[in-house]
Amino acid sequence: MFISCLDMEGVLVPEIWIAFSKETGIAELSRTTRDEPDYDKLMRYRLDILKRHGFKLSDVQSTIGKIEPFEGAREFLGKLSELCPVIIISDTFEQFAGPLIKKLGNPTLFCNTLEVAGNGEITGYKMRVKNSKLSTVRALQSIGYETLAVGDSYNDIAMMRASRKGFLFKTTKAIAAENPDIGVYDEFDGLLSAMKAAME
Amino acid sequence: MFISCLDMEGVLVPEIWIAFSKETGIAELSRTTRDEPDYDKLMRYRLDILKRHGFKLSDVQSTIGKIEPFEGAREFLGKLSELCPVIIISDTFEQFAGPLIKKLGNPTLFCNTLEVAGNGEITGYKMRVKNSKLSTVRALQSIGYETLAVGDSYNDIAMMRASRKGFLFKTTKAIAAENPDIGVYDEFDGLLSAMKAAME
Repeated sequence: MFISCLDMEGVLVPEIWIAFSKETGIAELSRTTRDEPDYDKLMRYRLDILKRHGFKLSDVQSTIGKIEPFEGAREFLGKLSELCPVIIISDTFEQFAGPLIKKLGNPTLFCNTLEVAGNGEITGYKMRVKNSKLSTVRALQSIGYETLAVGDSYNDIAMMRASRKGFLFKTTKAIAAENPDIGVYDEFDGLLSAMKAAME
Repeated sequence: MFISCLDMEGVLVPEIWIAFSKETGIAELSRTTRDEPDYDKLMRYRLDILKRHGFKLSDVQSTIGKIEPFEGAREFLGKLSELCPVIIISDTFEQFAGPLIKKLGNPTLFCNTLEVAGNGEITGYKMRVKNSKLSTVRALQSIGYETLAVGDSYNDIAMMRASRKGFLFKTTKAIAAENPDIGVYDEFDGLLSAMKAAME
């Protein structure tokens, strides 16, 4: 029996921090896991910038409220979930993801949580588990599932390599070149066909 | 961070085999996990009866197509999934569950698979993992989740006892009496309030 594990940002919806970077005009906030493989370093860097500019959780949430999923993402999830269970495994935070998950048709999301002060300042974050994508794929395999994994970034590669099959989606040229053994897709239709074939 | 693990039959939708028993008039098929704690024994018993009467997968599926979720089940799932991720862990089979899952708003289901011959006869079944409910709860805990577990039957008790909190829902008097330390609920509103309180 198969289960599909999908990254969210960059795959199903645009990157939250890039949207916030555009909205605020703070270019430093456009760094993502595609540029910086060390997520802790990246998050500390982001929170420092928020603090320096006095931005609160509600400011980021207000930008997120305007983000729309990629065209076809919701339909793709609907069709995929007729083939097997689908879990979105994201390094984002529940306080960010809510409105996006609703727009995607309420798929199941495994993510992390932010620490927020009484005044709305984001003071830190709590990662649910170390190497959450790889750990989650391993946990699902331990209960009898064969996993298919889809992502676009450095932090998705380990779960792809640990899976029956991995799929790079809307990734960068650099990441594709560094992982020539993983198939690269740019359209949901092609991705769905490839995932279907991997389940046969 | 919390995740909710729910049994399906008896909790969110009526028991499939009881519906099929009523439809066919075969009283022997009304046995469920509430009566027989040994699921393998129960399934072999059920498949023997199907074979004896010449019933195929499509006959059972046709009955399942007429089953409606319990009143309020879909709304309950919608509200619960705003509080935490929700996984339905069922000992049923993907070939049975499809139409019911659609009527419940497409929640994520972890279940098993039937072996079906070319002529449509159900020849066997493949359980995804041993003790699937308990194993799944343990796997989710291993990736940083605290679990809440809801069920009605003998095969749900182990996942309840392994969870931060368990909830018996629409259960029998016997099961409630044998598990006096587990709260018993009969309405979705009361269950949701109790689960919400357990997450605080």
